Amino acid sequence: MTDIQGPVVPTPESVSVFRPLPANAVRLGAAGLLGGWQARNAAATLPHCVTQLDAYGNLANLRRITGDAEGDFRGMWFADTDVHKTLEAAFWEHGRAGAGDASSPALPEFVAEVAELLEKAQDPDGYLNSYYQGDHRDEQWAELHFSHEMYTAGHLIQAAVAAVRSAPGDPPAEQVMTVARRFADLLVQRFGQSPEVDGHPEIETALAELYRVTGHRPYLDLAARLLDNRGRGVLGEGRFGPRYFQDHEPLRGATEVTGHVVRQLYLLAGAVDVAVETHDDELLAAAERLWESALASRTYVTGGQGSRHRDEAFGDPYELPPDRAYAETCAAIGGFQLAWRLLLATGDSKYADELERLLYNGIAASTAVDGIGFFYSNPLQLRAGHDGSHEDAPTQRLPWYSCACCPPNLARLMASLHSYVATGDADEVQLHLYAPGTIHAAGRTLRIDTAYPWDARVTITVTETTAEPWELSVRIPAWCTTADVDGEPVAPGRLRLRRTWRAGDQVVLTLPMPPRLVTAHPRVDAVRGAAALARGPVVYCLEQAGLDDDLEDLELDPAAPPRITDGHGLLVSARVRPPEHQLYRTPAAPPAVPEKSVTVTAIPYFLWANRAPGPMRVWIPLAAREE
Amino acid sequence: MTDIQGPVVPTPESVSVFRPLPANAVRLGAAGLLGGWQARNAAATLPHCVTQLDAYGNLANLRRITGDAEGDFRGMWFADTDVHKTLEAAFWEHGRAGAGDASSPALPEFVAEVAELLEKAQDPDGYLNSYYQGDHRDEQWAELHFSHEMYTAGHLIQAAVAAVRSAPGDPPAEQVMTVARRFADLLVQRFGQSPEVDGHPEIETALAELYRVTGHRPYLDLAARLLDNRGRGVLGEGRFGPRYFQDHEPLRGATEVTGHVVRQLYLLAGAVDVAVETHDDELLAAAERLWESALASRTYVTGGQGSRHRDEAFGDPYELPPDRAYAETCAAIGGFQLAWRLLLATGDSKYADELERLLYNGIAASTAVDGIGFFYSNPLQLRAGHDGSHEDAPTQRLPWYSCACCPPNLARLMASLHSYVATGDADEVQLHLYAPGTIHAAGRTLRIDTAYPWDARVTITVTETTAEPWELSVRIPAWCTTADVDGEPVAPGRLRLRRTWRAGDQVVLTLPMPPRLVTAHPRVDAVRGAAALARGPVVYCLEQAGLDDDLEDLELDPAAPPRITDGHGLLVSARVRPPEHQLYRTPAAPPAVPEKSVTVTAIPYFLWANRAPGPMRVWIPLAAREE
Repeated sequence: MTDIQGPVVPTPESVSVFRPLPANAVRLGAAGLLGGWQARNAAATLPHCVTQLDAYGNLANLRRITGDAEGDFRGMWFADTDVHKTLEAAFWEHGRAGAGDASSPALPEFVAEVAELLEKAQDPDGYLNSYYQGDHRDEQWAELHFSHEMYTAGHLIQAAVAAVRSAPGDPPAEQVMTVARRFADLLVQRFGQSPEVDGHPEIETALAELYRVTGHRPYLDLAARLLDNRGRGVLGEGRFGPRYFQDHEPLRGATEVTGHVVRQLYLLAGAVDVAVETHDDELLAAAERLWESALASRTYVTGGQGSRHRDEAFGDPYELPPDRAYAETCAAIGGFQLAWRLLLATGDSKYADELERLLYNGIAASTAVDGIGFFYSNPLQLRAGHDGSHEDAPTQRLPWYSCACCPPNLARLMASLHSYVATGDADEVQLHLYAPGTIHAAGRTLRIDTAYPWDARVTITVTETTAEPWELSVRIPAWCTTADVDGEPVAPGRLRLRRTWRAGDQVVLTLPMPPRLVTAHPRVDAVRGAAALARGPVVYCLEQAGLDDDLEDLELDPAAPPRITDGHGLLVSARVRPPEHQLYRTPAAPPAVPEKSVTVTAIPYFLWANRAPGPMRVWIPLAAREE
Repeated sequence: MTDIQGPVVPTPESVSVFRPLPANAVRLGAAGLLGGWQARNAAATLPHCVTQLDAYGNLANLRRITGDAEGDFRGMWFADTDVHKTLEAAFWEHGRAGAGDASSPALPEFVAEVAELLEKAQDPDGYLNSYYQGDHRDEQWAELHFSHEMYTAGHLIQAAVAAVRSAPGDPPAEQVMTVARRFADLLVQRFGQSPEVDGHPEIETALAELYRVTGHRPYLDLAARLLDNRGRGVLGEGRFGPRYFQDHEPLRGATEVTGHVVRQLYLLAGAVDVAVETHDDELLAAAERLWESALASRTYVTGGQGSRHRDEAFGDPYELPPDRAYAETCAAIGGFQLAWRLLLATGDSKYADELERLLYNGIAASTAVDGIGFFYSNPLQLRAGHDGSHEDAPTQRLPWYSCACCPPNLARLMASLHSYVATGDADEVQLHLYAPGTIHAAGRTLRIDTAYPWDARVTITVTETTAEPWELSVRIPAWCTTADVDGEPVAPGRLRLRRTWRAGDQVVLTLPMPPRLVTAHPRVDAVRGAAALARGPVVYCLEQAGLDDDLEDLELDPAAPPRITDGHGLLVSARVRPPEHQLYRTPAAPPAVPEKSVTVTAIPYFLWANRAPGPMRVWIPLAAREE
């Protein structure tokens, strides 16, 4: 079996603390949540994306350029990125399914067709963007604050990186890489000495990854240059001012995340990539500082980020309304990408804790159980009487969006999810996410048996090992203050076990996960007097579906602890508040009508809106304690 | 003294219950709040608006059409409306200052100039819109969902109505009316048989008022037609869907306010105007029903409406975040216009209560004490660390806006404010708003002496009367449950005093207004566990300016009632919460560090951000009661 690579592979010369394993080192069992999501992605989401690219005209947009289609350009001006991200997902999926085996199935027809199409559509100088090549040639490179041209190039490059890492030597993969390098070379030529930047970051991480694949230094230099160009007001005011695209101050001096969330997170991901390759401690420190600022006051309990629909922005500190949470799916994915890069760069397990929170909540909630419905925004509350007619706040997951950035972004993440489970090198294996499966690295094989996150126990069996001692390290999540490993209490963080291992050796982690209430910092006004329910890494919610009483009238009984049900639900004691009518009143004695007590079942937040559309809450008001 | 008329004058044939007094019947003393606001408007706001029309190119836009200016069109495509609204304000101010006296000063130069300019810019067929007449002639009447062409015509018509009511016979007034009627005649011709509507309502109320002035029935018929055309999907999807412009269902069948707030309120104002003139009970009932729906779950404690910045919309029921309150100034003005029309139509004093709440809070807060700074949105909270770089949520009032609809809207309301204080006819005088001044109607004169809303006492002295008995009625505000009139307890609502009056008779209202706490319906999640402070009709706030401790750490002591200070402030007992660091945690015992107790001064909300920019809150968290 030939090793293939996954996303984010720092060079040996980088300062990264942790090193990714080969992409075919990890196989996730389909019985686990993570492996199940990968299987669903392969069976449902990815084919759905391929179908939608035809249905929504994304492929036709490119065929207009090659003369193989007629009609108007359709969709957003950056519609090519949906093609590129789906292509990237298809390559990762090829690597996952075939696991790098020489007998892996041929690349699907889609990949071969798109590779051909991209090559044919590309301008002689390397430019490729069906919107600007079509009816907007005059505006090429002329409206960078808005155009997403480098952003689009970045997604093409990421598809090419996935291609040659997943299917090295395969003709379509090499074809896509050739197209991407020609575009990248054009970028180097056009912007290598320029003060300009793209309004939407993404190219930075793509160029750093392309450098990692090719060893061609100018790609990395351009990424570094674009990071340093930003923050000098080069993008103008735009519609929402320079903070929207993080052009108000240079990243190195910034202290807080701001503006459009996905732009900020993609920018920081690129900064980490460049920092570790160029040994730029200042830049890495800036990325860590901004990440901390987001986690301190601008992150939902689900890991979601972005409190405003108007400009898809972070909002002010502690401005975290559950009902108007924007928490874009792509922001959760961007947060995942950033946390992973910071984990590699620093080895700090807090970043892996965040990967886990995002994965089980902010990211998982975006996709319907059937894999073909998606949320773009991920609210933590849906009110009775909600007007679900807006695409930015629908009542249910939709099969596609007029701006369809999220579904193919999910497809590429899920197809490569196994790459984020563990890291290691010849001397160490670090476990980050717990899921049943196998991990094979440098002559050592581990089998993971667990029903995590529904059960506390994770059994790690060494089924194959080298003779020399090596270190197995495991993450103890910050939410788990009563963990033990083989019966010995351990504190949250990373537990390192350096031993001479023998085949058959086992390590048993116990990560007790009783249901717990979570409250927010008192400055989070929007959830004052309310609590969320969580168990392990999973945040829960109540939804109207399945309730006899009106969800809006329920209050948690703070004296009765939640209990685990047979399934994955939590049984919760609640009181039913008598209806009130006045919108405002002077405070009075509690209503005379006695409150009814009921027991209701909370479900994992990521499963909401799969039964029937209707009200949902993560944050439940707390009933006053009996006096 | 010749009687002149103010805004909203239903015809004698209308079904209105209350009848407006002539515009020169009421004079407000400058020592009172209302009279002071009128004086400030005349001295500062209105001249400021006139200056800004020059500075921002609004007048130049029209002069481009007449060939008297060059350069590009500037501002919003409906920038003419700023001219029309300022012109309307100037005419009301003329009527107020001159009080209809033959010796009143000549109309200011501005009015004469603009009247000339409008006449000269008007197309031969009556069309007048400097945006479409200039560079967008091809799109004239072609994009009604977006163009604001009828909206713009409506504001021209309202200026003309103000002109002939305030300065009857005056040449510039007649000139503006001639222009407006020619445009209105064009509208009748163009749209009298059409299924179309304008994306932004306003023309409906303008046409009804023009009918009232002219007696020309086709204007009223067109207004009625436009109301009935709406709600049938004629505007298409637009950017935010048909609910945005209330085109999703006919108004007659609607049960809830929805979409863009100003559009909804202007539409309802037009509906009431048409309903009372056409004796259309169904239409009036629809307007009342929608008003009730807004008050029941979509209105801030300040009377402000609109919870969303994205589409300036009402939002879902009980979605009332104080920090992201949009509560546009024009929405408060629209709410005032609607409540006034409903008060005239029905005589129900709940509408006058709402006029009062809006006036002292949602409307008054929009203007700086110097009269030349304005809020467009009126949040009920500004956070520490607020990013004030967005024009839609600035830290301080701004002198003007890229969309400057609010300042001239304030100018026209304030210039006519005295018209909303009382109503009456030969047999009755109804008082609605309490302010020092005089009311003269049909041979009767009342003098009002009061320091309201800072003092409970309102003394009404009959200084002149007719011999026949007539009825004086006074509004007892709903917030006042301990009112008395001449020592006799009275319930909220309307108290009617039918007597044979003699000069020198007095009626003394006592409306006790101790400071009170206000809490919100439990479904208003955003302010759970918090209370607002109010006194009489005035809502209070705390702001960082003047505080030693961090506003964000203060909690109201619920056991210590607020006290009145020497000035207009309230002394409030609060506890200072020790700082916390974690964004989320499992609930624990209260912090061990003892809380500090402090006394702070709350100020009227309408005065916030006049000392220094900084955090502000209307809703203050309530400290837990000592157990």
